[in-house]
Amino acid sequence: MADLPAVESRGAITAVEGGITAPHGFAVGAVHSGIKASPTALDLAVLVADAPVSAAALFTTNLAQAAPVLVSRRHLEHARGRARAVVVNSGCANACTGAQGLADAEQMAHETAAALGCAPHEVLVASTGVIGVALKMDRVVRGIRAAIGSVSRQRGAEAARAIMTTDPFPKDHAVAVETPRGRFIVGGMAKGSGMIEPNMATMLGFLTTDAEVPPALLRRALQRSARDTFNAITVDGECSTNDSLFALASGASGVVIDEETYPALVDGLLSASRELAVAIVRGGEGATKVIVVTVADARTVEDARQVARTIANSPLVKTAVHGADPNWGRIVAAAGRSGVVFDINRLTVHVGGTLLFEHGLPHDEAAPVAAGHLQGKNVQIDLNLGTGGRASATIWTCDLSAEYVRINGEYRT
Amino acid sequence: MADLPAVESRGAITAVEGGITAPHGFAVGAVHSGIKASPTALDLAVLVADAPVSAAALFTTNLAQAAPVLVSRRHLEHARGRARAVVVNSGCANACTGAQGLADAEQMAHETAAALGCAPHEVLVASTGVIGVALKMDRVVRGIRAAIGSVSRQRGAEAARAIMTTDPFPKDHAVAVETPRGRFIVGGMAKGSGMIEPNMATMLGFLTTDAEVPPALLRRALQRSARDTFNAITVDGECSTNDSLFALASGASGVVIDEETYPALVDGLLSASRELAVAIVRGGEGATKVIVVTVADARTVEDARQVARTIANSPLVKTAVHGADPNWGRIVAAAGRSGVVFDINRLTVHVGGTLLFEHGLPHDEAAPVAAGHLQGKNVQIDLNLGTGGRASATIWTCDLSAEYVRINGEYRT
Repeated sequence: MADLPAVESRGAITAVEGGITAPHGFAVGAVHSGIKASPTALDLAVLVADAPVSAAALFTTNLAQAAPVLVSRRHLEHARGRARAVVVNSGCANACTGAQGLADAEQMAHETAAALGCAPHEVLVASTGVIGVALKMDRVVRGIRAAIGSVSRQRGAEAARAIMTTDPFPKDHAVAVETPRGRFIVGGMAKGSGMIEPNMATMLGFLTTDAEVPPALLRRALQRSARDTFNAITVDGECSTNDSLFALASGASGVVIDEETYPALVDGLLSASRELAVAIVRGGEGATKVIVVTVADARTVEDARQVARTIANSPLVKTAVHGADPNWGRIVAAAGRSGVVFDINRLTVHVGGTLLFEHGLPHDEAAPVAAGHLQGKNVQIDLNLGTGGRASATIWTCDLSAEYVRINGEYRT
Repeated sequence: MADLPAVESRGAITAVEGGITAPHGFAVGAVHSGIKASPTALDLAVLVADAPVSAAALFTTNLAQAAPVLVSRRHLEHARGRARAVVVNSGCANACTGAQGLADAEQMAHETAAALGCAPHEVLVASTGVIGVALKMDRVVRGIRAAIGSVSRQRGAEAARAIMTTDPFPKDHAVAVETPRGRFIVGGMAKGSGMIEPNMATMLGFLTTDAEVPPALLRRALQRSARDTFNAITVDGECSTNDSLFALASGASGVVIDEETYPALVDGLLSASRELAVAIVRGGEGATKVIVVTVADARTVEDARQVARTIANSPLVKTAVHGADPNWGRIVAAAGRSGVVFDINRLTVHVGGTLLFEHGLPHDEAAPVAAGHLQGKNVQIDLNLGTGGRASATIWTCDLSAEYVRINGEYRT
């Protein structure tokens, strides 16, 4: 996408077909188990590695953590960063479900493990959907067995559909990374929609690679790549109870990741993750435009992110973009209330590359050009804080439409 | 209003007629000066004290401070907490207008002072409306002269109209406070609508009293009363460039405020301010309901406010209330991401007095009763954090409707 900053590449990265199962060593199954009311909607998927593999995960920072989050965290620790499978359902978040919810999440892992012949703690669990409702475990158990019975490398697209809730389209992507040691693949799928905010949202993300990566290095690379991708998006400033991002590395490509080749792994994860993260924003509830907010010349990256997030979460900025109004005043006001200290008279604001504000004053003569840019689907807002610092950050968000209100006034999370 | 916590009263407080000019010693004038496009809309008002009086003010915490904010702050310091008049216009915020904007705000004070025969620094200035557009000073100057020529104690309602932007109705209120030393009046008017968030929003507030109050005590009482009123409301989490709250004390009642009678002054200010602040929320852009979020049993008041604010600014909570959905899950999720640490299993959530969540589990059988409450215009959300602390806080907000999006996608701030 032309609106994305280029990935700083240390190897050739090219998009490839196949999504989550593009890397060797993985297969998926997806079924309609009956959790979702619709009689045909896919609502349960199992991602299976050929054998136990390196695994890492990041989870929601919300105090209210759903049962699958608690269980996955425990299993990953118990298995010391190795996993055989991830079982995931949509339609029910299994959050705020108490002891029964924990037992249900454990049972999901047990059923998956029994069918695969692995230990239960080698299975990770994820759920997304309505909060506070118990899973119908008879349906889930039947679904798990059916899904595992159907696993193949050809069902990546089905799995990406099976994890959707109000998402308007499935999100998967894969890239090949060329290194001096050979080529490896990174694949992934994600679901998003509402409750999307930096530091994990109602977001489920799954990444696979056939590089060979020790668990600790995989975790480091996942954190690094999430920082500028899954943790740099916001739809509505909400952070959910179920957010989880998983990475599994099969080693099937034979390419070994160590400190020397680590940058290539990060690049691959960044590339696949950015595509998925921006797709989550593009498919945000009611979204009609993707907005890329970049803040430069801040004292620290944290400052730059704080200003960018405040703008990206400003309902007045988001509604102005929705109405194609080049309203630099709302952008300046949001930056000014972000809590980051800078000199308004040194601030510049560009919309779509057009300078709208500098020296404390507007360039209203340029507003029509900026308004033209805002008619498009990809909106770029750039601020330079003029602090003399060199730190910068980018946050992706979407516009705020009446459709967001309609969806969330009617849909029961 | 039945949904408001009772003011802890140390004297009898009763509502009285007259708004901003109910206290003795003040008069107002209001005219259409031509700043607003509509040929008849009032857009300029002058609040005049019979003589220089005690004055105090609170201003926006936004880094981008409008010219009238900078000028009023300077004048108040220069005059050591005394003022003769406040001149205010709507339709143009005089924000992001550079050196010309500062000169224009100064000229507003000078013209007012010249017509009244006082010093320019005894005049305070406020503006609200579109950002980044210069005032048409020829019209403003004619308007100031006409407004001052028309001042009377009977024009309070006109002044309350003259400060409106997208407000759906004018907001004024007055109360009489009985004390052992006699009776004094507190009056006020305010404008709100969008960009409303704790710590001053696109909010202008004006309070008058005929009590006799030294400037330092007036400032302390204003800060104290604003904490639980004007600084405890949010429409959209936005904090503007122009927010200002002024208080003027004429002393005309002969009731002297000192440390002993200070609580009665605070009560009077609280009572008038709460009515105005809640009216701002009720008239929030697109608002159809007022939501009162009270958080109890927190470790500190700051914790309680933080949790209440996060819920009050949550677009998912606000849209759920708009749709009359008793969605305790979104309330729990917002509390959980507020940054305040507490035990979800000790949290209780009531909506309209109906228990919906405790011991980490929902009471879905009670949902229909709560849904009935949500059909009304006044919504009460109560959380008990169960920390064993005794601190509590209340934040007022409104629901988020498609109308908010329509207003802000079309209106140029």
